[in-house]
Amino acid sequence: MIDTLCIIGVGLIGGSLARALREAGLVRRVVGCGRDAGNLARAIELGVIDEAFHDPAQAVVGADMVVVAVTLGATGEILQRIAPSLKADAIVTDVGSAKACVIEAARQALAPSALPRFVPGHPIAGAEKSGVEAANAQLYQRHRVILTPLPEQSAAALASVVAMWEATGAEVLCMDATLHDQVLAATSHLPHVLAYAMVNCLLDLDTPVSVMDYAAGGFRDFTRIASSNPPMWRDIALNNAPALLAMIGHFETSLGQLRQALEARDAVALEQAFSRAKTARDDYLSRSIRI
Amino acid sequence: MIDTLCIIGVGLIGGSLARALREAGLVRRVVGCGRDAGNLARAIELGVIDEAFHDPAQAVVGADMVVVAVTLGATGEILQRIAPSLKADAIVTDVGSAKACVIEAARQALAPSALPRFVPGHPIAGAEKSGVEAANAQLYQRHRVILTPLPEQSAAALASVVAMWEATGAEVLCMDATLHDQVLAATSHLPHVLAYAMVNCLLDLDTPVSVMDYAAGGFRDFTRIASSNPPMWRDIALNNAPALLAMIGHFETSLGQLRQALEARDAVALEQAFSRAKTARDDYLSRSIRI
Repeated sequence: MIDTLCIIGVGLIGGSLARALREAGLVRRVVGCGRDAGNLARAIELGVIDEAFHDPAQAVVGADMVVVAVTLGATGEILQRIAPSLKADAIVTDVGSAKACVIEAARQALAPSALPRFVPGHPIAGAEKSGVEAANAQLYQRHRVILTPLPEQSAAALASVVAMWEATGAEVLCMDATLHDQVLAATSHLPHVLAYAMVNCLLDLDTPVSVMDYAAGGFRDFTRIASSNPPMWRDIALNNAPALLAMIGHFETSLGQLRQALEARDAVALEQAFSRAKTARDDYLSRSIRI
Repeated sequence: MIDTLCIIGVGLIGGSLARALREAGLVRRVVGCGRDAGNLARAIELGVIDEAFHDPAQAVVGADMVVVAVTLGATGEILQRIAPSLKADAIVTDVGSAKACVIEAARQALAPSALPRFVPGHPIAGAEKSGVEAANAQLYQRHRVILTPLPEQSAAALASVVAMWEATGAEVLCMDATLHDQVLAATSHLPHVLAYAMVNCLLDLDTPVSVMDYAAGGFRDFTRIASSNPPMWRDIALNNAPALLAMIGHFETSLGQLRQALEARDAVALEQAFSRAKTARDDYLSRSIRI
């Protein structure tokens, strides 16, 4: 049971967590913090939060659990601002898509005594929609939440954050932050960069027709993630740059292998490469239970 | 009205065309040709075709319209084999995903007098499923069929093929074969190569976990086309190699630009590139009426 939960950034991610915890009966009072007065008023109207603040330092006063659910680019500054007014036993967690950068920011912002109660986290969920209007208690059901505990992590703080996410219906697992950043670069950040590059590649073509007018279903699915929020993905790319750059390099190698097989008109190599990918992708689908 | 239609390759594409033309009352008799006796028997049982042959040269005897619906790699050989037994006024068309290679094959296979009645075509449709069991009369509704007429094309033959496809509910348009091959390389063949390369890139990673176990919905959509049929896509890649290689080069440039912006930690350039792609992709979606 969380007595006072403070959500900094009351959007889809923070708002859905608040809703899920309320529905599970796991929280008494929810305080929300954000810059947009209209959004905060709407969050109160919708019953997502009980009270609203603009100043994070004020919002966290008296909070038992603080969830920083802002963009990666703003996380460091938020931690700086809340550090002086956190309760001595407050637990702080975040939802950022990259973790090494958040841990570095936390080490700079928080006192050594507060660090063991900072639990880096990443719910692997999202949706086409954003904002508190889209927040729903079911968002995390059957989704994964990855926590990347610090070496000095308090076991009790970690257990509390695990329990909080499990109450939303999520499956919680722990992982080394560096591995997390590699895994997410591979499965999420790289595909986004490729989808953006793919669309830009078509826009740069010097053809007498707009080639996208001839795109079919395969292209639509392939580029769906190119409709993702640009400032958010700029932040993710910049904050996971080392892992993402390494992954772009790996991809360039893989693509180069296919290009060379095609240049050599090597039918056997092409079919083997395509079959290898198909088998792995079909296996992944058959194992996958997630939305 | 087509008196005798001959479908060479009674799979999803050929079978769906036969079904649609029957439903539209536009064909009296359908002859099917293929290598797999079980598949042909099933096609007769399902009412897709009336009569079956293994030998294409026999199948086309007396046919008014011949549709070559085999893989790109087999199209040239089929044209060679049917050429001697075509009726003098038979119209021949195909469904291949690349057109310059088919036109070259047709010029080698068909007599100069028969060429004006060969109409290169490409229905932009397909499905996860394949085979005659999946054939359905609705497959082409609201889909595009691109025809790439020859300079010496017979206007009457072209009109017949246009009418045939329009009867299936498709929207028919004509395009230069070279432009077709560029457009399809850009919107279909390149995305397939990238999806295959993406999955292989993950398989080649040296990580202590199987990264695909952590993939979410974005990855699933992005790689859907990596589950496509490998021999078919090997054929498409090889038969549209010049256009596809050029497009891979364009993509490598686009990806390289994003990589450089990320290496330079250039937030403005990254956000501009992502926004440009998002705007174009959202525009495409809002214009798109196709499945």
